[in-house]
Amino acid sequence: MQFSSALLENAVNEFAKLPGIGKKTALRLVLHLLKQNTSEVAHFSQVIERMRSEIKFCQRCFNVADADICSICSNSMRKQEIICVVENIRDVIAIESTQQYNGTYHVLGGVISPLDGIGPDQLNIESLVSRIQKEKTEELIFALNPTIQGDTTIYYIQKKLQPCSLRITTIARGIAFGGELEYADEMTLARSLQNRLPVESYVANK
Amino acid sequence: MQFSSALLENAVNEFAKLPGIGKKTALRLVLHLLKQNTSEVAHFSQVIERMRSEIKFCQRCFNVADADICSICSNSMRKQEIICVVENIRDVIAIESTQQYNGTYHVLGGVISPLDGIGPDQLNIESLVSRIQKEKTEELIFALNPTIQGDTTIYYIQKKLQPCSLRITTIARGIAFGGELEYADEMTLARSLQNRLPVESYVANK
Repeated sequence: MQFSSALLENAVNEFAKLPGIGKKTALRLVLHLLKQNTSEVAHFSQVIERMRSEIKFCQRCFNVADADICSICSNSMRKQEIICVVENIRDVIAIESTQQYNGTYHVLGGVISPLDGIGPDQLNIESLVSRIQKEKTEELIFALNPTIQGDTTIYYIQKKLQPCSLRITTIARGIAFGGELEYADEMTLARSLQNRLPVESYVANK
Repeated sequence: MQFSSALLENAVNEFAKLPGIGKKTALRLVLHLLKQNTSEVAHFSQVIERMRSEIKFCQRCFNVADADICSICSNSMRKQEIICVVENIRDVIAIESTQQYNGTYHVLGGVISPLDGIGPDQLNIESLVSRIQKEKTEELIFALNPTIQGDTTIYYIQKKLQPCSLRITTIARGIAFGGELEYADEMTLARSLQNRLPVESYVANK
């Protein structure tokens, strides 16, 4: 692509660094911003810069926060004795969007994956264990992706927590709503048969 | 979507204002920026802000420019007697990327479209006419999209330029390379039959 303005070219190149944004899309975005008022674009860039420079990570659960403790951990209406273990912030947002969970979180920052060089020490596992020992945690819910790495992480943490007496669960695996049996993989289908539910409880949950 | 950080939420909302970017994509972009260094994100936002606040429009051809006159107009290696009339900056970039054109441009800023309330006065047409009268323009090439609005604009400008003696052309319409005859619309096919080329000139251009 040939630009007659270095300012334009630099802006396009910056946008094109973002994931999933190619040069053509970047140009479209930059030309859109060029049509906006100077103050609007200044606001856009300030919001982005502030987000990066001022955002904090909750000292208790490692979720994103505007203060030292995130709004979920500091909310007395939520059940502080229940911890949901997730891989990253995106999972927190996904679960929060269901509006079905009223406990707290613990963001691991990834899952154990020796092939990628990620061991337990790179994750927020030690802090989880000490948090459980300090607080009166009643239940730990694993909401990790159903991969080998996710299962390894569950196994590792569960081993570490054996001295503690608390309920440890994982979110249900099964056929997704709207999914079709014939297209489900064998593993999922087999697991959903093993973990079958009594119809009464299924109907009650509806 | 539920966010536990207002900083994060504001950044996502700003990105989601961009065309073709929904909330989920915006979140992906923001979480990507969150992983970058503070200085990198500061650079990103400064480049965007500078682009909007410092970019100029060439006083001669209305292309984007870093100075009062754009790099194409101030380039003495380019044929200043040839003007290519385009709708917007994106078209300039598209034509420049072919590396086949060595003249100058005139960016109209749109095409005449009464339904959208765009008349000749909203476009850079007056400046084009006075530019042609002042400069020794030899040829005017219309590179507008083949729509009714584009054709109306060509007709209007051509009428205005009747007193001037210069060659007025338009880019060729026809079957695109890689296009298939049977899927071409009738208008395009009919026009490409009318404007057929002698095979010698076609082969010579190859």
